[in-house]
Amino acid sequence: MIFVCIMWMLGDDGVLKAPAMSRLELLQQQALHHNRAFDILESLTVEVGPRMAGTSHDLRGVQWAKHKFEELGFDEVWLEQAQYPSWIRGEATCEIVDPFPQPLAVTALGTSVATLDDGVTAQVVSFENLDALKSADPLEVSGKIVFINQAMERSNTGRGYGKAVVVRRSGASEAARKGALAVLIRSIGTDSHRFPHTGLQRYDEDTEQIPAAALSNPDANQLQLALKRGPVTLRLFLSARKGPMFSSFNVIGEIKGREVPEELVLLGAHLDSWDLGTGALDDGAGVAIVTEVGRLISNMRERPRRTIRVVLFANEEQGLWGAKAYAAQHESELNRHMIAAESDFGAGPVWHFTTAVREKALPFMHQVAEALKPLGVDMGDNNSYGGPDLRPMMELGLPVVSLIQDGTDYFDYHHTADDTLDKVDPKALSQSVAAFATFAYMCAETDVTFSDEHIHE
Amino acid sequence: MIFVCIMWMLGDDGVLKAPAMSRLELLQQQALHHNRAFDILESLTVEVGPRMAGTSHDLRGVQWAKHKFEELGFDEVWLEQAQYPSWIRGEATCEIVDPFPQPLAVTALGTSVATLDDGVTAQVVSFENLDALKSADPLEVSGKIVFINQAMERSNTGRGYGKAVVVRRSGASEAARKGALAVLIRSIGTDSHRFPHTGLQRYDEDTEQIPAAALSNPDANQLQLALKRGPVTLRLFLSARKGPMFSSFNVIGEIKGREVPEELVLLGAHLDSWDLGTGALDDGAGVAIVTEVGRLISNMRERPRRTIRVVLFANEEQGLWGAKAYAAQHESELNRHMIAAESDFGAGPVWHFTTAVREKALPFMHQVAEALKPLGVDMGDNNSYGGPDLRPMMELGLPVVSLIQDGTDYFDYHHTADDTLDKVDPKALSQSVAAFATFAYMCAETDVTFSDEHIHE
Repeated sequence: MIFVCIMWMLGDDGVLKAPAMSRLELLQQQALHHNRAFDILESLTVEVGPRMAGTSHDLRGVQWAKHKFEELGFDEVWLEQAQYPSWIRGEATCEIVDPFPQPLAVTALGTSVATLDDGVTAQVVSFENLDALKSADPLEVSGKIVFINQAMERSNTGRGYGKAVVVRRSGASEAARKGALAVLIRSIGTDSHRFPHTGLQRYDEDTEQIPAAALSNPDANQLQLALKRGPVTLRLFLSARKGPMFSSFNVIGEIKGREVPEELVLLGAHLDSWDLGTGALDDGAGVAIVTEVGRLISNMRERPRRTIRVVLFANEEQGLWGAKAYAAQHESELNRHMIAAESDFGAGPVWHFTTAVREKALPFMHQVAEALKPLGVDMGDNNSYGGPDLRPMMELGLPVVSLIQDGTDYFDYHHTADDTLDKVDPKALSQSVAAFATFAYMCAETDVTFSDEHIHE
Repeated sequence: MIFVCIMWMLGDDGVLKAPAMSRLELLQQQALHHNRAFDILESLTVEVGPRMAGTSHDLRGVQWAKHKFEELGFDEVWLEQAQYPSWIRGEATCEIVDPFPQPLAVTALGTSVATLDDGVTAQVVSFENLDALKSADPLEVSGKIVFINQAMERSNTGRGYGKAVVVRRSGASEAARKGALAVLIRSIGTDSHRFPHTGLQRYDEDTEQIPAAALSNPDANQLQLALKRGPVTLRLFLSARKGPMFSSFNVIGEIKGREVPEELVLLGAHLDSWDLGTGALDDGAGVAIVTEVGRLISNMRERPRRTIRVVLFANEEQGLWGAKAYAAQHESELNRHMIAAESDFGAGPVWHFTTAVREKALPFMHQVAEALKPLGVDMGDNNSYGGPDLRPMMELGLPVVSLIQDGTDYFDYHHTADDTLDKVDPKALSQSVAAFATFAYMCAETDVTFSDEHIHE
């Protein structure tokens, strides 16, 4: 930390002064040496538990968040409505009917339609990946259950997800286009446990809507080994269905800036989870991190110049509905949003820092990077992804950073029943709090602006 | 291996001659360098899958085993009947009703009765362990759902199981004695995944039969954290029930000895599994190991002197029914059974060798230990446990050995849906085959006897 201090005092930019740095050091130490974020996460996952968008648990999550912000001393706390179509998971069963009768562990994919009451019973046609399905002869696919056996690669960046998730997103419509009765995918996940991974799929408008579900990785192996022995008949039953339109809320809390409270540094996470687990990693951890950063900064002896706004977005999982509502509601004042970061990649530690800011702001971002270095964070490019809930605002010009958490194990639990509190390391969570607090405090204390659109320029 | 050869040729016992040793070496090499046991295990877990006693899968397992023995060239293959009461798992659900409504992952314990159709809804009273329940005031327990939160310790020997399993076995009756409506236990398992571990429980004759179920470890944590916040009301629903008496079979295959075929070396494993997983570790691995040992020995250029008898026992899980039937049916000719070993502790490598033989046979057992040493197996005491299915015969005087497999991870999967083929390391399985083959071949080739009761003495 001494190294950082010296760097700072000698910095030719001179934006922050030494006293601010020692406040930053104190902030980092407080983040690292308490596990308050874990306490917040425990509170959310125990007292609310699963909180799928469009359910009563969704609204309980909103109440929890509002009370938590108030209890932690945020200056202002309010709700902003977000509406979306709901989806009801219902029941899901799958079994090999012939030649080796046995159940397979399965879950419906989000927005899937139901099967008939008796399920769909049909022969399986298997494809190694989506491309193989796309190039298949419809005669081989028609009247069958399509199984897409594409496996996801493990990495700390989660880059395997981008490659594999297209199977989940588009598998049903691609299969329907060839006349399939239903689609089953190998779970988009890196574990070898019998937890199927749910997640959103989307029907193309020009194809029939067929039932879509995921097998756990061991069950996908099992089906593959059965198919190696000859033709396999499966029965898939889903009672998933559309629910009514639903109103929930983005939950917003602010720690007012001491000099320019109208200028905002936004910290985001999403409050909803899938229903199978308690969403400890996705995205309870993010909720806990940004909430604890808010609490830490609200407790500082001297507030930073700008306001910290913590936004817990509604319904990220089923299509960024909260994020879209926020972007629409705040479009006219988006230039008050100086910069944003989101935590939605588990419990972490942060290891990499990327930015998406104007060139002129990069010297300052290098200062932020220097302050992150003692936490084990290195600096990357200026082409940051931001975060899912920041995308609608990024399209409108919002500058962002990414504090990228280690996601090596994230997709072992992602969207499964196994996404629970025991998977979270309190120390790693605290390191993420320290990293997000460093970013938030420095960007709120500076008068540097990050976009050419911003009010100061 | 050379070391072993020299030891042998110089051995003052002189029971086995050098040519036999090179045959043993060849046998070990064949065991180690092929993964045929894994192929057998794949065949069982894919083509039969789960095979709970008293189900149609039980009988499919019997047919599979008979055909497998025949296909692998065993000299004689037959079935011996074993009868037992069956039990039907039905459905199981559990949820926190108040104050934090959410589902908990639960499974019924074997032989549990059902709840009422609407389930049991009651306040929870929690105990750290069985002793705490035993010493509780019945007024605190009566009319409630008892939760026993005793955790199992991890070890390579599985010693934590013995300590913890008493909770599963006796929890319901102890709770009933105090007037509880149902009992929920923390799973007897060492993992932190949302798989509840099933297993047998027994009702005492003098107490009421109340529903008994297990929560997964993360769900037990969750309930514990909810209880930390105040009183918790749970709803437990089980439709478990008794089924009819059921007839299944021990499956027996022999490789006839070249000189004294009436003398038997028995290799055992159990063919049944619980229904939640495919029983790859419990006890598909054991089935595969002893079957592959049979195949390897049947393919030897010269058969050992004694007969190798492979017994795949029916219904171990619900009370050693196949083992008891075998002991009863073979009691009069038990002295033909020279010695026995069972594999029922997963797929891990064998690391320890214990015996339960007469003193006079120990020098020979030290020779066996020497032959096991290159496989990484050390020698223990002469107080071997044998194996669950050997216990009824041990009570009648059968000498046994234990080739103890590494069980560090065994109770992560034991009795869960996650006990599947992907958890098995083919190399470790082959090492176990080599160890069991070493024991079987040497004890079949020698004329040493292991019990004072045996026909030669």
